Amino acid sequence: MRRDLDVLDALRLVIGGPVCLVTTRWRDKTDVMPAIWVTPVSRRPPLIGLAVHPSRQTHDLIRFAEEFALNIPGPDLLAHTHYFGVVSGRDVAKLDISRLPTFPASRIEAPLLEFCLAWIECGLEEALRLGDHTFFVGRVVAVQAERDAFDETWLVGERPFRPLHYLGGEWYGLLAERFQARLRTDEEGAVQLEEAPEERERREEEEARERERRQREGAE
Amino acid sequence: MRRDLDVLDALRLVIGGPVCLVTTRWRDKTDVMPAIWVTPVSRRPPLIGLAVHPSRQTHDLIRFAEEFALNIPGPDLLAHTHYFGVVSGRDVAKLDISRLPTFPASRIEAPLLEFCLAWIECGLEEALRLGDHTFFVGRVVAVQAERDAFDETWLVGERPFRPLHYLGGEWYGLLAERFQARLRTDEEGAVQLEEAPEERERREEEEARERERRQREGAE
Repeated sequence: MRRDLDVLDALRLVIGGPVCLVTTRWRDKTDVMPAIWVTPVSRRPPLIGLAVHPSRQTHDLIRFAEEFALNIPGPDLLAHTHYFGVVSGRDVAKLDISRLPTFPASRIEAPLLEFCLAWIECGLEEALRLGDHTFFVGRVVAVQAERDAFDETWLVGERPFRPLHYLGGEWYGLLAERFQARLRTDEEGAVQLEEAPEERERREEEEARERERRQREGAE
Repeated sequence: MRRDLDVLDALRLVIGGPVCLVTTRWRDKTDVMPAIWVTPVSRRPPLIGLAVHPSRQTHDLIRFAEEFALNIPGPDLLAHTHYFGVVSGRDVAKLDISRLPTFPASRIEAPLLEFCLAWIECGLEEALRLGDHTFFVGRVVAVQAERDAFDETWLVGERPFRPLHYLGGEWYGLLAERFQARLRTDEEGAVQLEEAPEERERREEEEARERERRQREGAE
């Protein structure tokens, strides 16, 4: 079930690096493209940046429409996500061909994609040329997420509700496990760090030697 | 075992959104801070951007030194990573207290952290104010990674060799599974998409009804 979230939640939706399907609409053109080069850049106001190559139709649609949406897919949309990346919206009406249903965004014209796990609507604030890409900075204006996928953070629950990650080439991955970091403090309140792997190795070796020594002594 | 990689591999190391421990050194000051707001922004030249709040000591050290390193930890460094985030380098010599060993970078002054899975050295190209953070854009000058962790993409192999992801609050996650997207084409070479979840549901329902019908008929 979809529910509305605070605009600040958008920042936590994109950290950890899930694939974002960027949807755009300008006049009679609608397009979709997976974006991997995405990050929050500011909390007040909540801004998200994404780098898009100028050869992409999405690049021009963002420039002209001055808005875009990020739709975060789960593993069910693996083939769709990959397909949206390998064909160009200049050649093919990707969204029509995919037959993936859409629904209206609440604050912008671009459509949102059904079967995704989260949706972030942005208005364009800046477009900066950095190297061979344009870095579009969007201000978050509306956010929705599936209740079973995200509650303050990604829940990493049942497999269909985990966001899809891109690793490169044709390779994708999913998050698994979700664990909490706890800082232990000593009696005076100072933080106690866990042992570094090196220290642990040294300690374990010493303990093993000590056990061996005792066994030898016990056997004598 | 560490090995040197091509500078372009840095872009694949940071996609998918692993935590990056930023190390910096300027004159007699050395600091470390986890950065989550990190993304590639250009391929030619290979540029990586990260957003850092001006209150952080790392912010000033990057500005003054005009270089920084990204060290990507695995789950063994969970407590260290979290600790580096909750205390400020202005108050505490974090790196000394952590007793995490370091080794020299190949092209920059900042130290690299032992027990990480990958290391990216960057020279500062631009510093842009975006909202309440500074977006530092670094040009990748050297890259290393653990052989068991990364080979063209993150391998998502044995647990200690998977990069650590941050989810928000005290919550972290790990990647699991690594799978390949394959586009099927029909006889004429057109791409065949997998069914959308909706279509699959409808087909499965129809098949179930068909099976029931046959069972009833068989039982009659």
